Amino acid sequence: MAEELHKIKTILPEPTLRRLPWYLAYVNLLQSQKVEYVSSTQIAKEIKVDASQIAKDLSFLNIKGKTRIGYEVDTLVHELADFLGFKEVHNAFMVGVGSLGGALMRDSGLSQYGLNIVAGFDIKQEIIGTSICNVPIYDMEELAKYRKETGTEIGILAVPVEHAQEAADKMIACGLKAIWNFTPYRIKAPEDIVIQNTSIYAHLALIYNRMQENEKTASTCKE
Amino acid sequence: MAEELHKIKTILPEPTLRRLPWYLAYVNLLQSQKVEYVSSTQIAKEIKVDASQIAKDLSFLNIKGKTRIGYEVDTLVHELADFLGFKEVHNAFMVGVGSLGGALMRDSGLSQYGLNIVAGFDIKQEIIGTSICNVPIYDMEELAKYRKETGTEIGILAVPVEHAQEAADKMIACGLKAIWNFTPYRIKAPEDIVIQNTSIYAHLALIYNRMQENEKTASTCKE
Repeated sequence: MAEELHKIKTILPEPTLRRLPWYLAYVNLLQSQKVEYVSSTQIAKEIKVDASQIAKDLSFLNIKGKTRIGYEVDTLVHELADFLGFKEVHNAFMVGVGSLGGALMRDSGLSQYGLNIVAGFDIKQEIIGTSICNVPIYDMEELAKYRKETGTEIGILAVPVEHAQEAADKMIACGLKAIWNFTPYRIKAPEDIVIQNTSIYAHLALIYNRMQENEKTASTCKE
Repeated sequence: MAEELHKIKTILPEPTLRRLPWYLAYVNLLQSQKVEYVSSTQIAKEIKVDASQIAKDLSFLNIKGKTRIGYEVDTLVHELADFLGFKEVHNAFMVGVGSLGGALMRDSGLSQYGLNIVAGFDIKQEIIGTSICNVPIYDMEELAKYRKETGTEIGILAVPVEHAQEAADKMIACGLKAIWNFTPYRIKAPEDIVIQNTSIYAHLALIYNRMQENEKTASTCKE
């Protein structure tokens, strides 16, 4: 079964992988409302993705709907969460326990999606030895030591921009396999290291810009 | 000048807008290192974007480099931050002060990018009337009242999935113009409302999946 799942994952296109969490969020909602079945047409209407695309995406996971009834909600919730890796526990280090890093350590939502922050690392002496939500904060110099002890593979990068590359280099050197990069800096890494950029501040620029465009459209319409 | 900038913004393609914050992060770093000039080739090497693309992107902002010298770092920092809207103050409401919402309210980084959270809103009686980092938390019912009083236009959505659409509807009804959606739910909104999805948990699925693919490649290589 694990073998089979592995095969499927390999051929999964990234756009599909990006849509699956939307489906999961919606079927989670249906499950909480005690809804038993849902059609791809109904999901399509809610999520604004073409129904045939949804059916295709779900077929990658070997999930098939029944004619006239649709998909079983419980099955969808289970299979999607399982496939997306949210049911396993993935240990992670928080590298850089500043404002954003500390905030992420306080967010219990991450653990619901399988991410378990086991330690924080920083260079600021005044926070080394303290903890946030019972997660200890160590000296950055001890990264390699705790990496070995805990077998952690994911590092969350939330240091100031000027230290982003240097911190990433240390994370890679000590054996971390994936870096979830919350800095706006485009870090360089070997091909076999997974880099996921989540530059939340960059999204602000998109919001500001679109708002300004909308204002312009509105004022043009009034003229 | 403002008029001119407006014209430029309108024709800016979204991929360009997504790359500009990367350039800013890099030139910020150069500025902190007292570097005076940078070439598009050098930026290209650091950011892994084609040099001609960078020159084209920057030309949208009317920023031109000098032959053999390149771009003035101070000018780039100033123009990019200004263009991206990071130098203005944009008031925002936090809708849903749970774990993630509270964490974002504690993140001082947002204000560095021009976002000023002026109030939080929730339905939980036990937190209404309290505050986080001096930002008051009000009853969700008072959204419209404070909207008018403060002229706020941006709402950050961080409620549980099952309340996402309902909360978004309230935000739109009271006059907010943009919703920064941190829930994994695809909310529906009229066309003139700016929606920016930042589903950080969905990114976790991408990380888990790529790590598994890498493991598979590694084991295949060993065979």
